[in-house]
Amino acid sequence: MENVLNGIEEITLMGPGPSCVHRSVLDAMAKSTLGHLDPKFISIMDAMKDQMKTLLHTDNKLTIPVSGTGSAGMETCFVNLIEKGDPVLILINGVFGMRMEDVATRLGADVDTLEFEWGTPVIVDRVKTRLAEKSYKIVAVVHAETSTGVMNPVPEIGALLKDTGALFLVDAVTSFGGMKIDLDAWGIDVIYSGTQKCLSCPPGLAPISFSDRAVEAVKSRKTKVPNWYLDLTMIINYWEGATRAYHHTAPINMLYGLYQALYLVLEEGEENVYRRHMENHLRLSDGLKDLGINMLVDPSCRLPMLNSVRIPEGADDAGVRSALLKDHRIEIGAGLGPLAGKIWRIGLMGHTARPENVDRLLSALKTVI
Amino acid sequence: MENVLNGIEEITLMGPGPSCVHRSVLDAMAKSTLGHLDPKFISIMDAMKDQMKTLLHTDNKLTIPVSGTGSAGMETCFVNLIEKGDPVLILINGVFGMRMEDVATRLGADVDTLEFEWGTPVIVDRVKTRLAEKSYKIVAVVHAETSTGVMNPVPEIGALLKDTGALFLVDAVTSFGGMKIDLDAWGIDVIYSGTQKCLSCPPGLAPISFSDRAVEAVKSRKTKVPNWYLDLTMIINYWEGATRAYHHTAPINMLYGLYQALYLVLEEGEENVYRRHMENHLRLSDGLKDLGINMLVDPSCRLPMLNSVRIPEGADDAGVRSALLKDHRIEIGAGLGPLAGKIWRIGLMGHTARPENVDRLLSALKTVI
Repeated sequence: MENVLNGIEEITLMGPGPSCVHRSVLDAMAKSTLGHLDPKFISIMDAMKDQMKTLLHTDNKLTIPVSGTGSAGMETCFVNLIEKGDPVLILINGVFGMRMEDVATRLGADVDTLEFEWGTPVIVDRVKTRLAEKSYKIVAVVHAETSTGVMNPVPEIGALLKDTGALFLVDAVTSFGGMKIDLDAWGIDVIYSGTQKCLSCPPGLAPISFSDRAVEAVKSRKTKVPNWYLDLTMIINYWEGATRAYHHTAPINMLYGLYQALYLVLEEGEENVYRRHMENHLRLSDGLKDLGINMLVDPSCRLPMLNSVRIPEGADDAGVRSALLKDHRIEIGAGLGPLAGKIWRIGLMGHTARPENVDRLLSALKTVI
Repeated sequence: MENVLNGIEEITLMGPGPSCVHRSVLDAMAKSTLGHLDPKFISIMDAMKDQMKTLLHTDNKLTIPVSGTGSAGMETCFVNLIEKGDPVLILINGVFGMRMEDVATRLGADVDTLEFEWGTPVIVDRVKTRLAEKSYKIVAVVHAETSTGVMNPVPEIGALLKDTGALFLVDAVTSFGGMKIDLDAWGIDVIYSGTQKCLSCPPGLAPISFSDRAVEAVKSRKTKVPNWYLDLTMIINYWEGATRAYHHTAPINMLYGLYQALYLVLEEGEENVYRRHMENHLRLSDGLKDLGINMLVDPSCRLPMLNSVRIPEGADDAGVRSALLKDHRIEIGAGLGPLAGKIWRIGLMGHTARPENVDRLLSALKTVI
């Protein structure tokens, strides 16, 4: 009987995620499965909460991984907070801001949006003006917009929101583990991320963190959370407290992987990891310039881990990506939405952000373009 | 820096799931992560759909794993089908039937229930009477009720539903991979399962299958699915067709594990696997009888993979389970709901269902009770 897994080769993952996974993370996932109520496993859960709190710079008790991918993290944050008719403001400058709008609208929120040109950041003054006009229950923004490579001014938006009463909800899918997130200092109430970007763990989990104020908002809902699987009022009782009430069976081996991925970041040192991302980003953008390939985003708001580059004139978008994959075993990403066919997205996320990968990609690009 | 993963020991998982995982499944999960749009990965997805269709005995095109645990499978089935006010009948004789009621109610369905004594099966005649009184969009039942060890008469209920127009929705979390499921012949329209029971893969994925009639019902909704993450109208476009539109990043390495787990079942032979479950169940129930421990459920509807046994008089529920875990590295499960403190749940699921495990448990029970 043919086993299709036999043909899996190691690919250098330089797209928008998943990123390259360290062997020790894969080995962690292959450890023996424990029961989800085994005291040993509970101790791993507790250690993991501490790891995430350390890296997010928060005291939030509710800091846990959700049992789904990053998009399940987005769903969790909105579905627990939104009740029908709640006013929500979403700042949009890419695919993932649009996804937030779609998620919140489906849940019955009264959604307003402020839109900004793709490839440019959110303009703080426009947000300020809007906040002077209307009160919101939630204001949401993507920290690192994976579809464009833009970093949005999260600390500045957080400062605006202080004393407005709005909950500040941030998408950190691509930023977490690759650049500083100072959750409490920046006034973030709710954050979600994914494992397959700068944490360099395979996809499948979504770290989230809720401030006490956000937890209070969930607990004081008038209606039940309209999603049993992601209902934090029940999930909390499995991740906290003495009894650890069963809700759903935790994805044990995925959680081993996330623990190990977080362990590697903490072992290398948070600042060292961020510096490594930045240094390799500069190495890449310098090298691309030498090849005559230009970045989409202005240096002032460029993400280190997601490099959007304009496809050079005459180059065949799909053909180049396919040749990189087939002939060089390197994956890069295509553009999305209005940027499809116009950009490539080159990821330098987590374990992928190494000079040898940058150099290999640059030399491969030379041969395939 | 202390690494808490170092202390993980191999436990023989004889509870209600997760079950013991074959080394080759763990090794599969530790293979290099591929991109979720890599042609090689797409070929693994396609092969996996075929494996599931073979084991479920269905031609359903929409037969895929959902990116969450078994409970996410339940959520997926209900959230895609239910619109506000839809009449739903749920047959309840345990925790997981109750969970169905909770999920469907949160989604705004008009839920009726028929309840049956825990530890006994659904009575088909009562269902028949109800169906003569009222029409339903969905009739839902749990095939193998993990909380009690009862097998419900799914084929008989399916036969009743023919020509009523109702969609037949079945929870196969605990049955799939441990006993025959003849999806098309039994008239099942919608089914969900989990990976951590008789498929013996770690928890984290939920195989589902929708008949063409059920897909039609999803596609002809008047309102959008109120759950972006689990919206099958979009997920279908990633799992089917030529373009494979990105929806959310698939949990790549978990999917490797599921492929390998399904491979093992098909390699051993479906009938052989079911026979192994039944033989070990009989070996266990015989051995327990010799120890003076009685089964909760009548032999006519006992599940082979989930054995509910009455806690012998004078035995310390938690103490025995804890001693089994600490001194013998065997995990068994506690009772849930009204059966808490009254029963233990002994799983013989998938790779766990081996004579050496049964014998080891029986001899351990002798020493700890």
